[in-house]
Parts: sequence; structure tokens; C-alpha cells
Amino acid sequence: MAVAGPSANGNRVVNGVNGIAKGADPEATNFFNGEVLAGLNASKVTITKAKSLKPIPAVEDLVFGNTMTDHMLVATFHPEHGWSAPEVKPYGPLELDPASSCFQYCPNVFEGMKAYLDPQGEPRLFRPELNMERMRRSVERVALPPFDTAELLKLIKLMVTLEKRWIPAKQGCALYIRPTVIGTRPALGVSASDHALLYIILSPMGPYFRTGPKPISLLGVHDAVRAWPGGTGGYKLGLNYAPGFQPQREAAKKGYMQVLWLFKEGNGLEGLKVTEAGAMNFFVVVSRDDGGMDVITPPLDGTILPGLTRDSCLSLLRAHSPASPSLPALASTPLHAHERTLTLADLVRYSNEGRLLEAFGVGTAVVVVSVGRIGYEEQGQGLRDITLREHEGGHGPVAKALWERIVEVQEGRQEWEGWSVKCV
Amino acid sequence: MAVAGPSANGNRVVNGVNGIAKGADPEATNFFNGEVLAGLNASKVTITKAKSLKPIPAVEDLVFGNTMTDHMLVATFHPEHGWSAPEVKPYGPLELDPASSCFQYCPNVFEGMKAYLDPQGEPRLFRPELNMERMRRSVERVALPPFDTAELLKLIKLMVTLEKRWIPAKQGCALYIRPTVIGTRPALGVSASDHALLYIILSPMGPYFRTGPKPISLLGVHDAVRAWPGGTGGYKLGLNYAPGFQPQREAAKKGYMQVLWLFKEGNGLEGLKVTEAGAMNFFVVVSRDDGGMDVITPPLDGTILPGLTRDSCLSLLRAHSPASPSLPALASTPLHAHERTLTLADLVRYSNEGRLLEAFGVGTAVVVVSVGRIGYEEQGQGLRDITLREHEGGHGPVAKALWERIVEVQEGRQEWEGWSVKCV
Repeated sequence: MAVAGPSANGNRVVNGVNGIAKGADPEATNFFNGEVLAGLNASKVTITKAKSLKPIPAVEDLVFGNTMTDHMLVATFHPEHGWSAPEVKPYGPLELDPASSCFQYCPNVFEGMKAYLDPQGEPRLFRPELNMERMRRSVERVALPPFDTAELLKLIKLMVTLEKRWIPAKQGCALYIRPTVIGTRPALGVSASDHALLYIILSPMGPYFRTGPKPISLLGVHDAVRAWPGGTGGYKLGLNYAPGFQPQREAAKKGYMQVLWLFKEGNGLEGLKVTEAGAMNFFVVVSRDDGGMDVITPPLDGTILPGLTRDSCLSLLRAHSPASPSLPALASTPLHAHERTLTLADLVRYSNEGRLLEAFGVGTAVVVVSVGRIGYEEQGQGLRDITLREHEGGHGPVAKALWERIVEVQEGRQEWEGWSVKCV
Repeated sequence: MAVAGPSANGNRVVNGVNGIAKGADPEATNFFNGEVLAGLNASKVTITKAKSLKPIPAVEDLVFGNTMTDHMLVATFHPEHGWSAPEVKPYGPLELDPASSCFQYCPNVFEGMKAYLDPQGEPRLFRPELNMERMRRSVERVALPPFDTAELLKLIKLMVTLEKRWIPAKQGCALYIRPTVIGTRPALGVSASDHALLYIILSPMGPYFRTGPKPISLLGVHDAVRAWPGGTGGYKLGLNYAPGFQPQREAAKKGYMQVLWLFKEGNGLEGLKVTEAGAMNFFVVVSRDDGGMDVITPPLDGTILPGLTRDSCLSLLRAHSPASPSLPALASTPLHAHERTLTLADLVRYSNEGRLLEAFGVGTAVVVVSVGRIGYEEQGQGLRDITLREHEGGHGPVAKALWERIVEVQEGRQEWEGWSVKCV
């Protein structure tokens, strides 16, 4: 059994701060009242295997997030004992007190990651240290008990190795990984949860688009607001998502697949900042007079999730030059990446000028998905559409180049900056 | 056993809309695909009593929300079957799939209510129809399956009657009731939960302040923002609370008990709107030149929870006149209630002018709690305090009059506008 060796980092929480977890929140000490508590320690894991294993559905039959693997990993935090030894056990229900914080006040954090098989048939993760760092920040933002995310990463690698038979051996498919931490304080007083449950579940994914990439439609929405300055939009918290369900239904009723979240800062279309698309980061490609292209995504101002795919796209775009193309399919095209404010007025102007070449959403599950149509309402003028040109195969050239490049790095078919990480 | 009779309202959900629940969201139909499903029906309740009953702690030993009664009530919504028959059973853990929406995306709704014993020793609720209407709106806001809240109220009355021995027979004490609805869709796709679990748990409360009312301190905070126009601050959602835990810790580190949530709309203290205090609505009392008092609370602009206690305070204040005093202790004082924007600059000015007579927070758990000190930071001038005058007994005259009046109505010692409702 592939169990990580004893932690080089030690395994104690002193004064409530995991002395090893770089940057762990010293304020978390008020959980612990000076007690020396156990830290999360991958080397203490125990494994109870399922008596019988599930049949694995054909990748074509998989619906995202509906099928879970045979096992899950759990560890609990108790304010008097610290983190329990992690436990791998058959996938099954959690048992929780009805008064638990996770139901009542929602201090719930998750990450979305994927495991891939490389050409040697070995499992790989993609830039997992970025997920770990984001999870550390998210845990701190909702005042959950901290833990050493390096230990969590060892546990994730263990689970991926254990569930290797579930990783689809098909390009564009993957095993989706959902590390989750929830508050389990069994009391109704409104305060930070001093109990927690950390768990890892895994779900095999077929190709996101069964019949190849198809552009999606977006409806610009600003009366419902996803995130705001000083809020939690820049963290990966469960509570950022439920408020989007009702606006998403409204968009669907009007014939759009996802919401384009706008943030109203002023009057008119100029006052509507573009933030995210559904649960994805948003990019546009705009042609320049010099033959190059501007690729623009909104800046991380606190209302934008710092997505891994967003960061990977920006890195690849910035590394690209015709002399040294990080995106070989666009070898002859100078690309200029920008993190800058994008208003609905900008989108309309680029479109009217014939310069809006592409729009796409990016995220872990989908990687890259092109946008074909963006609806918006202008005061007193009803619903209008920005229509983007259609591209053969669904993706425009920039979306396609990014998608291909990222997927081949994720699957270990090409090396890039150490982004693809082996599990053993 | 006090079980409500067959529902006069019927018990079917047609096309996903509970045809009876006035105002139920017709858009919830997409859960049901035209199926005829069972609605929540109090008359179908089954009761399994606990084999042994717990000892009831002395009221002085109760910590808010830590002790639960012997039983809980649960009902589940399944997209193919609708609402299950409600089930009363011994209090115990919930069993839920780790992928459930409640952990991952937080479509979780709750209400806070209290049951009291009247002078005849019979249980009473306080304006429960307002909790039901707010819960209906909250459920709709996070796209949970709708239900007839009149049926829920019957179930709440049943539970209170069943757990009557837990209602403390002491003035100022009560049995706290926590109806909760959580999304239980067992899948990771980001969309509305088409499964739900509704439950009711109950917790006996001692006096909120063991040694009499003591004023609390508040720290004005605007870098972390509780609620935003277009957000969910006007709904009773679990997800509104976790983002406040970390700012609350920061305030505690600086020596303040709760956060006074400010909303920055412009520069300086004039640009900082006062919204809520901790998890309470906020009021100030300001003296007028004509001998009366202005009692001011921020308006329901979407960032403010429409609290029952807030509404009850406003109603009592508006009904008050020296000729017909709804607050007899203030018989000779003209009171002018206002729902209007209150800035930090207003608070400072009222204080400097010697007109800031009282500040207090109101909410279901605490009813009314006075504020003794409000800290704020002014650019470049460090932390300052607005200090409120001390009153014998902890409460100022308006806070005291409101607290006494509301509690005596809640406990059925005085009648007012039908606010106190019997359970049988």
C-alpha cells in the first residue's frame, strides 16, 4: 500500500498554530488555549478497503460529479485533541450532529483538482501546490482549524494512487478530486467552528463535452451580485455558490446557459464590470492593429477567484512569443496578456469594431470553454446579444491552443515548468 | 399525542409548485418535470419517542445552543417522490452523502424562533408567521424545493408541544427552535439542489445575560463586508454567517465583543453606512430638541436582515404615544421611529452633541442588548471610541422598555396585536 512515510515536517500543533504550516494563522490559537495538539499527519493514515469494488462506468456514461470512487479519506479536528489520524475507508455517508456549523453557518471550504494518467500509465496532478495554498487561505478566511496543507497533498496523492483504476485512460478525461473541509461544531451559537471534518472524495470524469467543444451562451446579470470587495469571492468557499442558483435559473429561462456576473460600479454599460462566467474565470481575445492579439481577463481585485486554469492561461500567454512559442499553434501571432478591468461597454465596443475575436471561460472541470453569445439588457432597450464568430471545432484559435497545451501538460505528454506532478 | 389533523390545504405538489403555498416559486417546477409529487404534510407525521429522556440542566447552567432536547423532526424531499412524511425521532446525527450540496455549495436556510410558557403553563410562539414567510423567501433565494410553510408551522407547534417539559418555566428564558432546510443533492455539479432535508431541533435557553443585561462593545468594520445590494444579506441563509467569523476574531483581539458592520459608500465617516451589529439589527436613540426621542434603525435595503425583533420594536415604537403608551415606562416621552440611513458620521455627531442616548442590538436570541462603546478607525488617527452613557441595570430607558414589553408579550403575560400564538 502506498502510504506516505513519516512526516519530515513533524506532526504537532503548538498553541493552535501548526508550527510547520508556513503562514498558518496565528489567530487560530484561540481554538486551543495553549494546548499542544496533534497536527494533520499523513504518516498516521489507516486504510480500510472496501469489501467489494464498484464497477466503473464507461467514460461516455459519466455525468460530471455523479459517480464516486470506492473509497474516501476523512480526518477530524477536535479542540482538545487536534487532528485525528487520517482514515481511508469505503465511500459512504457522513454522520453529523444537526446543529453542526456546516449546516447552520456554512464555514465550508473545497478545492477542485484532477488526476490524469501519463503516457507511462502513472497518475499525475496539475500544479497541486496552488490548490493547497488557496485552501490554506480559504480555511483561514472562515476561521476553520488550520492544518499543514503539505500533509493534505500527501493524502491526496495516496488517494489517487489507491483509486488509480478509476482514472480514465482516455485523453481529455480525468479523475476529479474534491478535498473538502467543513465546520462540525455541534452548537448553535454564532461563532467560529472549533471542530472540523476534512475529507477527500473522487469522481471519474468523461470528456466535458461529449460531442466536442460547443460554445456556450452567457447572460450578463448585475442585479444579483456574486461577489463584492471585502466579501469572499476571492476564496474557494462553498458559500459563494448557492446564491448563484436562482440567477442561473433565470438565465436559463431566458435561453442562456450560464450567468456572466457583472459588478455595477457606475451608470450605463461603462459602469458594469465583467467578473466571472458561471463558476469560471472569463477571458476575451481582441485583435490589435499591429497584427497581434490582446487576451484580457479581469484582475484579482477580491471579487475574482484566483483560478489555477486562469493562472496557467496567463502564464502560457506571457511566455509566448513568435520566437519561442509556448502555444505552437499560434507561433506566428504575438499575444499580449492583460489582467485588467473589462466592462460590458468594452465588450460591446470590441464587438462593434469587429475586434472581439473570442470569449471563453476557464476552470478546472472544463479547462476552456468558448462563448458564442453574450446577452445583456440595456436600460429601456430590452435584451440584446453580442454574437461571437463561430469556429470550426467549437474553439477559437486562442481557446484551442490553450486547451490543447494545458491538457497535454496535465496528461504528462509535454513538460512545462514542472506543472505536472507525479503521485509517487 | 398532539398531531395536527389532516391538512385543510391538501398535500400535493403539482408541477413542482406546492399549489397551496401562497407565493411558492413557480420556477421550482424545473425540479419536477411535470410530475405530481407529495407536498409537505403535517398530518402524515409519524412519531418515534426516545426510549429514555435526558435530564434537563438547570437554566443557570445552559449555554446558548449547546443543549438539545430529546427529539427532532425530519422530512426529506426527493425529486421523484416529493416530500416524505415528517418523522419525529430521537435527536441524533444526520447521515448525508459527502458530495451533498449542503457541504459543497451551501444552499442552507434556517430560522430562529422561541417558545415560552404562558401564565397558564401552556406553550406560546411569537409571531411565527413572520418566520415562516421569511423562510419561504430564503428557500426561494437559494432555489431549494418549496414547501407549504403553514404545514411547517404545524410541525413546529407539534414539536414544541412534544418537548414542552424543556421550556424553562422562568421569565426571560425560552425554548429556542431552529427549523433548518439544507440541500442534499448527492452530486458535485454546480447547480440547484433537487434534494433537501428539512429538520427542526430545539434547545433550551437560560437568561441570555446571567448577571443581568450588560452593555456590549462594538468595533466598526468596513474592510470586511457582511452583505451587499444584490447579495443575500436580506435573507436568513447560513452562508451569511461564516464570513463574519474572522472579522469577529479580529474585533475580539482589539477588545470589542462584536462587529458593527459598516458599508462604505463614499469617503470619510459620512461614507460609512451602519448596517448590522454582529448577527443583530441595530438601533440608536437620539434626543430631540422638542423633548422627544428619535429611534433610528437602517432601512431594509437588501443588506439588512428583516428581523422579527426589529419589526416588533418598530411596531411598538410607532404605536406609542403619551396618550396611548404602548411602552408604559416611557408614557411621558414622545418617540419617533425611523427606518433611515445611519452613517458613522451621524453616530459621531450625535455623540459629540450629547444627543446619543442609547444604542442597542436586537435579535431573537438576545431580544435587546445595549451597546456601551463603539470603536472606529479614522484615517490616520488610530482607533477611537464612541462611549455611551451607563444606565443602572444595563439597559437605557428605551432598550429596557422594549425588552420588557416584548418579553411580556412573548410570555403571554400581556396581549399585543395577536403576536403571541398558542401551540394547541
